[in-house]
Amino acid sequence: SKTYRIAAIAGDGIGKEVLPEGIRVVEAAAAKFGLSIEFTSFDWASCDYYLQHGQMMPDDWFETLKGFDAIYFGAVGWPDKVPDHISLWGSLIKFRREFDQYVNLRPVRLLPGVPCPLANRKPGDIDFFVVRENTEGEYSAVGGRVFEGTEREFVLQEAVFTRHGVDRILKFAFELANSRPRKKLTAATKSNGISISMPYWDERVVEMAKAYPGVAWDKQHIDILSARFVMQPDRFDVVVASNLFGDILSDLGPACTGTMGLAASANLNPERRFPSLFEPVHGSAPDIYGKLIANPIAMIWSGAMMLDFLGDGDASFKAAHDAIMAAIETVLVEGPRTPDVGGTANTTEVGKAVAQAL
Amino acid sequence: SKTYRIAAIAGDGIGKEVLPEGIRVVEAAAAKFGLSIEFTSFDWASCDYYLQHGQMMPDDWFETLKGFDAIYFGAVGWPDKVPDHISLWGSLIKFRREFDQYVNLRPVRLLPGVPCPLANRKPGDIDFFVVRENTEGEYSAVGGRVFEGTEREFVLQEAVFTRHGVDRILKFAFELANSRPRKKLTAATKSNGISISMPYWDERVVEMAKAYPGVAWDKQHIDILSARFVMQPDRFDVVVASNLFGDILSDLGPACTGTMGLAASANLNPERRFPSLFEPVHGSAPDIYGKLIANPIAMIWSGAMMLDFLGDGDASFKAAHDAIMAAIETVLVEGPRTPDVGGTANTTEVGKAVAQAL
Ligand SMILES: CC(C)[C@H](C(=O)O)[C@@H](O)C(=O)O
Ligand SMILES: CC(C)[C@H](C(=O)O)[C@@H](O)C(=O)O
Repeated sequence: SKTYRIAAIAGDGIGKEVLPEGIRVVEAAAAKFGLSIEFTSFDWASCDYYLQHGQMMPDDWFETLKGFDAIYFGAVGWPDKVPDHISLWGSLIKFRREFDQYVNLRPVRLLPGVPCPLANRKPGDIDFFVVRENTEGEYSAVGGRVFEGTEREFVLQEAVFTRHGVDRILKFAFELANSRPRKKLTAATKSNGISISMPYWDERVVEMAKAYPGVAWDKQHIDILSARFVMQPDRFDVVVASNLFGDILSDLGPACTGTMGLAASANLNPERRFPSLFEPVHGSAPDIYGKLIANPIAMIWSGAMMLDFLGDGDASFKAAHDAIMAAIETVLVEGPRTPDVGGTANTTEVGKAVAQAL
Repeated sequence: SKTYRIAAIAGDGIGKEVLPEGIRVVEAAAAKFGLSIEFTSFDWASCDYYLQHGQMMPDDWFETLKGFDAIYFGAVGWPDKVPDHISLWGSLIKFRREFDQYVNLRPVRLLPGVPCPLANRKPGDIDFFVVRENTEGEYSAVGGRVFEGTEREFVLQEAVFTRHGVDRILKFAFELANSRPRKKLTAATKSNGISISMPYWDERVVEMAKAYPGVAWDKQHIDILSARFVMQPDRFDVVVASNLFGDILSDLGPACTGTMGLAASANLNPERRFPSLFEPVHGSAPDIYGKLIANPIAMIWSGAMMLDFLGDGDASFKAAHDAIMAAIETVLVEGPRTPDVGGTANTTEVGKAVAQAL
């Protein structure tokens, strides 16, 4: 059977601490379920590489990576070394765009054993997906400065929404909602304030919804929607959002279910023309790097998502995914736990415990 | 002494239910502290007016309102009658822009007697301000559609950040932080993803901070900042944000402190060249309109902010503000309460109780 080749890119900060634990657990699951997975590590896509080479990645990064089956990615960014927009646009955002990973799929789930910052919520109460558009929208490099350096200075920044881009993310989200028991979809918008792009987004939602009569949907402005993540998180099933709104909601959701240290994500090219990328949502966290206190579970959970996607329905891959999720739950309940979830263990101890629980 | 003239505009939905309670309490406070306040009501700036006249407001709205000392505003919007971007750009957003109400000041405070959706938080733990830029940024009407109606269709939406606009909101926020005991400021940004406007915003923050060496400041990306509103709301003192980010944070903050029904706001023209506008954050809420269950406290609190601003340091106005806030706290603790804060009382009962507690 096929060997799946994974590019492992640690990046910066705690990316370097959590990636080895992710690999440890994915390898353990592969061994257990007879999957053939091979990791190849790259030390570029990091701010240290930038300081040496004046760019985040070698010129041939695209050629180098495009034949891999997936990218298993830690985190990028170290603002004291390289401004964030340079490091991110030179790595992660490039991957998302050039490998056309237009779906950013981010589960929000309250797991057992995790202290919840919300009052009176228990495991099972919160279980939904944020489906984030990942290649266009508010994240654009189009625009510029006018009258630079003078009192009259101003800046224009374009958001770009294409029918192609909007429709495909909506389709993915409606399909996902349609496949789930509750069949509910919420579209994030802000068409009352942002008066060109967001009314367009709303129109496309109305149009796409016609093809999914079984899905109950609504649209909510991002301000009140954020408030409802806190007040009524149980009411969500699938939340579809533009690049920026999805970014915000997919940090807010994990905050409501405990900690950024659990937030996993999949940057998908659903058509599999290019490698998809799997990464924790938390970022490089320079403030805690070096202490080995980062929670590796977001990285490990992202690894489970990777196996599920690679398997594309295959039963062994599915079993490996489910076994990792079960092992994560076991360790969250029984320990060891990192400080963010109330424990005193370090990153490696938690990674080993999850591998062990498999 | 001067008579202060206030334009009272109820707008749509629950705006019509809560405004009378706000007026009731402001009038009671004025009587008690010997302030001369005179309300004049207008029935335009509503979707019903639009249905009759094809526009939200009469042509001479600016002339009519510009001589008032303040606008006391309910809420606008009824999407089944008029699309939100038309009703809002035709009323509230026009006021903010044409009366140059460039500061949107929104307190976030956990009050006694309010059930908090966050676990283990008590009154006093959360007490900060969101200072929102209110006239430019992501809310713009600049942009358009290309290849409309075809498969190649796309939309461009400009965000506009001027040095004038950015600097004055930052100055207001740093001044506010400097005047508070903790002297802390957090600037919301997203310069890692939004690569032109947000790095510019960050630069202006760095520049403005130089004039306030006593203020401890940091910047946080909007995604993790939203997460921290849930996880560590006690760490904030003054949060300054662009129009869109301020919009999101000022719904999220009140959600973390209990309910949208308490969220007050002041749209200020600090130079007093034009009337400032005071309104609850919650909006028109068509889903609950007609039941008289809306919480009037956000409207009443906004009235207290109005008196404080009108007084401009005057002791009687300050006393009236403080008395209203004390009355609000009394009623929240002792009842009656509307359903959103765990009671069964209606809007009028709560309004009367606050006036009584004065
Ligand atoms: C109604 C809407 C346009 C408005 C805004 O986004 O500014 C509201 O949400 C607010 O926060 O005052
Ligand atoms: C690092 C940053 C550019 C990135 C984003 O905003 O997309 C991150 O916050 C994320 O959510 O993956």
